[in-house]
Amino acid sequence: MDTMAMMKTMSADAMPMAMDMEMMQDTMMAMNAASMAATMCSASDMRTGGEMATCAAMCSNTAMLADTGMRMMMRPMGMDAEAMRTMLAACVAMGTACAAECRQHADMDESCRYCAMACDEMVAKCRAMMDAMPA
Amino acid sequence: MDTMAMMKTMSADAMPMAMDMEMMQDTMMAMNAASMAATMCSASDMRTGGEMATCAAMCSNTAMLADTGMRMMMRPMGMDAEAMRTMLAACVAMGTACAAECRQHADMDESCRYCAMACDEMVAKCRAMMDAMPA
Amino acid sequence: MDTMAMMKTMSADAMPMAMDMEMMQDTMMAMNAASMAATMCSASDMRTGGEMATCAAMCSNTAMLADTGMRMMMRPMGMDAEAMRTMLAACVAMGTACAAECRQHADMDESCRYCAMACDEMVAKCRAMMDAMPA
Amino acid sequence: MDTMAMMKTMSADAMPMAMDMEMMQDTMMAMNAASMAATMCSASDMRTGGEMATCAAMCSNTAMLADTGMRMMMRPMGMDAEAMRTMLAACVAMGTACAAECRQHADMDESCRYCAMACDEMVAKCRAMMDAMPA
Repeated sequence: MDTMAMMKTMSADAMPMAMDMEMMQDTMMAMNAASMAATMCSASDMRTGGEMATCAAMCSNTAMLADTGMRMMMRPMGMDAEAMRTMLAACVAMGTACAAECRQHADMDESCRYCAMACDEMVAKCRAMMDAMPA
Repeated sequence: MDTMAMMKTMSADAMPMAMDMEMMQDTMMAMNAASMAATMCSASDMRTGGEMATCAAMCSNTAMLADTGMRMMMRPMGMDAEAMRTMLAACVAMGTACAAECRQHADMDESCRYCAMACDEMVAKCRAMMDAMPA
Repeated sequence: MDTMAMMKTMSADAMPMAMDMEMMQDTMMAMNAASMAATMCSASDMRTGGEMATCAAMCSNTAMLADTGMRMMMRPMGMDAEAMRTMLAACVAMGTACAAECRQHADMDESCRYCAMACDEMVAKCRAMMDAMPA
Repeated sequence: MDTMAMMKTMSADAMPMAMDMEMMQDTMMAMNAASMAATMCSASDMRTGGEMATCAAMCSNTAMLADTGMRMMMRPMGMDAEAMRTMLAACVAMGTACAAECRQHADMDESCRYCAMACDEMVAKCRAMMDAMPA
């Protein structure tokens, strides 16, 4: 199943504001990858516990927020500019905090290393979208 | 099952910043009510279609974001001040847009009337929390 | 916000099969309570780690499945009898496993005690609904 | 971000029962694709309304259940054999109903065509997993 091809079926006239469709698709793909990486990282952290407790909670929050952000973008008719901007800002803040936490144990834990990378990429895509939005 | 009593088991020392626990519980309850109202409103809108399409999409987005916000607050160890502030701002923006949309058909549709009220209450609680957060 | 009153706005003619609306509302309320209890229990378990790792993962799964079940029931037009029956069976199986796990540490952990009770109640309501469904 | 590579970091010893890891990964990828396709299909249906109301509700339910199933499989420590089997059965039932609905308008609507294909693939993968599970 080619997810990128599916996304191209989203019609631009459902957008509540002028948006670069390709940029939106990139952002949604990055949100999906971050959400999956954070879910797996959180599951791995739960087994370790102790010093990984903050990481487990951060990753659980990132997983849910990134997925919610992606699905909100898949229903652009249900957004306005302010809802879009603040949702992206929340993904940037949560993804930045999560990546910083995961990076601290990236040497010992492969799922943390993936999660930090996936969060970084989501943050970069969300920032680019925010910059491209009309003021 | 007394959900409010359950929430009192949340321990204040899991908080990443000084927070009024009662205010947090009120906000989580308002998010839960808004998320449930918006899910039911969206389901009702789907049946109508046409002019209710925007309402269906807005309510779907509000339902998911309000629920995500509530669960992030239930894992406060996985938040920092900036993630909390931006998540609340996103709920304010989305809830404001959704309430405005629902209010337009509140006369004809009971689920829209409930949803607008539930969104208003969530927005008020989120704003109060943002005001109470240390700068 | 009176969630029970909101639920009464759900119209019976959206149902894909004959269903007792009051029984459905009770089940949805029990699913919501179980989902919230399990989210808070999971967050508490993450801090403990070690022997609570299984509990954290079970509660995370219960939280998500119970919430999904509730929202599927809020969109009954999007169900058929087999989807309803299997979703309820999944909530029974997951809720039973989660309650058994939580009950093992109910003496030490207040959130586990609440979660076990909330899961038991959800399981009972789901079973009652399954028994009431036309074969 | 290579999601398949991330999934290979999941450790087999977190499994509550003997499972073929590759089969699990295939199933999770199919659930993710079905969940994304159904979210986009549902958003498209909302705009049409009328005869697409059932499709919008079905796709909303499939989107949420497929995503929940995927994340439960990412936390296998939080499953037991009965929870796994019933969750897979629910995804089979919901995916089958959704594919049948979407196929009815696959000629007119590209998102329905994608969604039916993605649901079919998820159903096939879930069935294969159920067949492979120890009785």
